[in-house]
Amino acid sequence: MTYCVGLLVQSGVVMIADTRTNAGIDNVSTFRKLHLFGTKGERAIAIACAGNLSISQSVIAMVSEGLVNPETGETERIEDMPSMFRAAQLVGFAVRQMRKQLGEALEDAGLPFDVAFLLAGQVAGREMRMYMIYAAGNFIECGRDSPFLQIGEHKYGKPILDRSVQWETTLNDAIKLGLLSMDSTLRSNLGVGLPLDIAVIPRDALAITISRRIENGDPYFRNLSERWSSALRAAHMDIPPPPWGVDG
Amino acid sequence: MTYCVGLLVQSGVVMIADTRTNAGIDNVSTFRKLHLFGTKGERAIAIACAGNLSISQSVIAMVSEGLVNPETGETERIEDMPSMFRAAQLVGFAVRQMRKQLGEALEDAGLPFDVAFLLAGQVAGREMRMYMIYAAGNFIECGRDSPFLQIGEHKYGKPILDRSVQWETTLNDAIKLGLLSMDSTLRSNLGVGLPLDIAVIPRDALAITISRRIENGDPYFRNLSERWSSALRAAHMDIPPPPWGVDG
Repeated sequence: MTYCVGLLVQSGVVMIADTRTNAGIDNVSTFRKLHLFGTKGERAIAIACAGNLSISQSVIAMVSEGLVNPETGETERIEDMPSMFRAAQLVGFAVRQMRKQLGEALEDAGLPFDVAFLLAGQVAGREMRMYMIYAAGNFIECGRDSPFLQIGEHKYGKPILDRSVQWETTLNDAIKLGLLSMDSTLRSNLGVGLPLDIAVIPRDALAITISRRIENGDPYFRNLSERWSSALRAAHMDIPPPPWGVDG
Repeated sequence: MTYCVGLLVQSGVVMIADTRTNAGIDNVSTFRKLHLFGTKGERAIAIACAGNLSISQSVIAMVSEGLVNPETGETERIEDMPSMFRAAQLVGFAVRQMRKQLGEALEDAGLPFDVAFLLAGQVAGREMRMYMIYAAGNFIECGRDSPFLQIGEHKYGKPILDRSVQWETTLNDAIKLGLLSMDSTLRSNLGVGLPLDIAVIPRDALAITISRRIENGDPYFRNLSERWSSALRAAHMDIPPPPWGVDG
């Protein structure tokens, strides 16, 4: 399993990915699923992946090294794309190339062509954008009404985002809410695991100003998790019992 | 969709079920999924259902009206079972009878034989028990380590239970936590909807002392939901930003 969450708020992008992968439940490994691209002052791009690791790693390699555009004959790399929309199209194109190469063989092996990406960032002179790219290479864009997207094991960590993330949420709060969403998921599904990778791209910074790995035992993350647990306990203790509840 | 949760704590059982059913996303209805059986002083049993409504309704009707035990030739009803374990076996037997009747026809129609039950309660002189019964009629029993079981859309509402429900949790707290788990699910999946049905069976009461429907606009549920939202907001605001966070 995997859980990745991207938040696109007024002041920028926060992207967090776990690192646990498994081939069956008895073959668990740690792989980086958050990939960063860009040149300071020109562009800053983060991509998080879920699904079949062989597909997602190949797609990342393809958009990094370059794909030949069949219409122009030119090699296109994610670092050269003039906008985030074009970057999303390139990732989508790479996904379809992989599907052509692998789809049938995977199907013969009884495996689905299962992959998903979050792509977020900004190119100089353009708007900041975030996209979720599906296994057919199609994609949707994140909007202001629900300024976050999730891939992988998304359900456990969604309620906290649904309640609290808004367009006006600050970047520091977006980091905290993303980590709380991760924490809920880590607790409820062992298929999602530490360490976490986190990247932050403030709006118009054109740079990934925070790129950090949160290891097992990280004091900030442990403190956040403990504070959250006790606040939740206090919160539900503080709610009065139902007037129709049990006596005593 | 459906979400049902059962909590089995030291002081008794709380079972909560939503009432939304849908055949496709454009055919949404309200059906009761929480069914109560028993005679005060003799036994108190609650059953919640998820999955294909035609299967679950038939299983409930069968265990209520009686099934012929092929070994003894006798008709067995859930109200006559000498223990909760035997009641779970009867529900499992009814599920397999339905599978024999319907499984092939459903498969021909491209539909899975999809059904699940939570069964909880107590028979006089016996231990209180809770079971989750699967689509093959097999079942597991709820234990003290994680004193709750869920069927249907269980993920959104699991983190709050994972963090807070313990064997020592009081019945009133179990009601609150069950309703908070429901509230998280209602917010994140429109396929789960009000009204809710709730039943409470205190240990050794041999009676369903609370059987209540929580309608849209129920003042206690609305208050619980609002308090929870603001407590969550306050809780995450109260967590300090990461020391490596964004300036300002």
